[in-house]
Amino acid sequence: MSEKVIIGVVGPGDGARQETEAAAYDLGQRVAREGWILLTGGRNAGVMDAASRGAKAAGGLTVGILPGRDSSTRSAAVDIPIVTDMGSARNNINVLSSHLLIVCGMSPGTASEVALALKAGRAVIFIAAGKETRRFFSGLAPEGVFFAEDPAQAVEIAKSLLPRSR
Amino acid sequence: MSEKVIIGVVGPGDGARQETEAAAYDLGQRVAREGWILLTGGRNAGVMDAASRGAKAAGGLTVGILPGRDSSTRSAAVDIPIVTDMGSARNNINVLSSHLLIVCGMSPGTASEVALALKAGRAVIFIAAGKETRRFFSGLAPEGVFFAEDPAQAVEIAKSLLPRSR
Amino acid sequence: MSEKVIIGVVGPGDGARQETEAAAYDLGQRVAREGWILLTGGRNAGVMDAASRGAKAAGGLTVGILPGRDSSTRSAAVDIPIVTDMGSARNNINVLSSHLLIVCGMSPGTASEVALALKAGRAVIFIAAGKETRRFFSGLAPEGVFFAEDPAQAVEIAKSLLPRSR
Amino acid sequence: MSEKVIIGVVGPGDGARQETEAAAYDLGQRVAREGWILLTGGRNAGVMDAASRGAKAAGGLTVGILPGRDSSTRSAAVDIPIVTDMGSARNNINVLSSHLLIVCGMSPGTASEVALALKAGRAVIFIAAGKETRRFFSGLAPEGVFFAEDPAQAVEIAKSLLPRSR
Repeated sequence: MSEKVIIGVVGPGDGARQETEAAAYDLGQRVAREGWILLTGGRNAGVMDAASRGAKAAGGLTVGILPGRDSSTRSAAVDIPIVTDMGSARNNINVLSSHLLIVCGMSPGTASEVALALKAGRAVIFIAAGKETRRFFSGLAPEGVFFAEDPAQAVEIAKSLLPRSR
Repeated sequence: MSEKVIIGVVGPGDGARQETEAAAYDLGQRVAREGWILLTGGRNAGVMDAASRGAKAAGGLTVGILPGRDSSTRSAAVDIPIVTDMGSARNNINVLSSHLLIVCGMSPGTASEVALALKAGRAVIFIAAGKETRRFFSGLAPEGVFFAEDPAQAVEIAKSLLPRSR
Repeated sequence: MSEKVIIGVVGPGDGARQETEAAAYDLGQRVAREGWILLTGGRNAGVMDAASRGAKAAGGLTVGILPGRDSSTRSAAVDIPIVTDMGSARNNINVLSSHLLIVCGMSPGTASEVALALKAGRAVIFIAAGKETRRFFSGLAPEGVFFAEDPAQAVEIAKSLLPRSR
Repeated sequence: MSEKVIIGVVGPGDGARQETEAAAYDLGQRVAREGWILLTGGRNAGVMDAASRGAKAAGGLTVGILPGRDSSTRSAAVDIPIVTDMGSARNNINVLSSHLLIVCGMSPGTASEVALALKAGRAVIFIAAGKETRRFFSGLAPEGVFFAEDPAQAVEIAKSLLPRSR
């Protein structure tokens, strides 16, 4: 059996901007339409929730790696909640379980996931990244980072990278 | 959206006995036929692999929580490999992510999962448990443990318990 | 530099019996008098707290591996609180960081630590174990378990085992 | 009993520059002279090793939170190796166990620790940070980051911040 592609989508939870959530929703739809499984941090907030709702709207399968000790914080659009009770240490599981990461917006938690992905050799695709984000992560791992204008371009980059297996 | 039931099946990996693997395969089929998601430790060995193969043979969905840093050890019958790089600490994720646990056979790793489940308030159903196993865990948590003769009875007990939510 | 010996002491937290806590306090003193570092689950409860208090009374050094996200639950007798925010998954860290484990009393959490220790190849010494505990763990890993009448005997067994390095 | 101060020092492991290691060694000495416990990622490489050696040279106590499953990779200057078998997920333990973080150099792993610290509300003091690092993390969490020219200034900033408890 061939392994299904799992795409991690990360971004701010609480306090995500409306345009960032809109991009995450669009991205979730596009991930699902490619037949890829969507993996997020699973909570009912921000980019995690928006991407999961987008994927479900397009008939996809969604996995959420939850930080708490039960599934009470999960997005209703997460099909498979994984309950870790590990707080932010679960960010490393998000990264390792994904073939590659697509990033919408930025926050301390998101930055930790990007950095852990680069450490683990996972490619990271940023959507509409700000100048400081581009410069910092390009300096850290120039061969691991990719920049897209919008979700459509991010998915095109992901398709070009996917022969790189997890 | 209502949450899907996730059933954790645990038991020896390397060195599982043939009859234990046969029970795990049967159990995996029965879990899938109920429409439940099967969750295991995900490796290509013993009860994890047998239960996952059974579930796939019956058209089910399988999740594997892997101990290593990549998915190279995964059972080919695992649809969704979650890569933790946490070794045996991932056993707590197996337990927390499952509505209840069904146990085939016994080993140190399996015993840790049973104990963590009882600690976390998850019900544990043993199939064909030995006398020492029955006595020890009945003494530890009398209201949390249930004993079945075979996979069919284990599934009946699980159905009777499932209103207890995760 | 030669590595210092670290001895893990495990047992019930909340609801530990008075005689179990007394044994843990005595054991903590004896561990410190050997010049060993004491490692526990770190909380201000039961065996963790009693063993740490005993070790401090004898001038020892104490490490506590805490389950929560801050050190608010720590025993006042813990010198070095390690904050994991991993709940019961931290039990595997307790085990791996110890050269061997000494067990006072029994509970689901304690049983998980014993099982994880046996899985990881750490020797486990039980003090005044009940019949069911003896039989169950002797069946699981006959070469890994040792039984002592009291803390003094447990320390003697530990000394005889310590050439086995972590 | 009052809690001892634990200072986390983070920076590149493999491939750290010589001047970064020299700063880490100096910093380790200064941390020890303040009577603070030094906490690092514990490996025998780069900033972790240099800071630990500095602290030992000044008579301090050193804790190392190791990523692997045994203590074989530990720096000889680590007094208390904590064995996690959690890979990079242990970075969150480094952060949570420290009252504040001091950063020498930059790498993907280091960036993940800085981001996790900011997420957890721990102050982060950078020594001789590059422009991209300053701009990125100042944008992420302006109130959580501090910039020092050298180890001496970093310790002065730490002293001014320490009433902020963990």
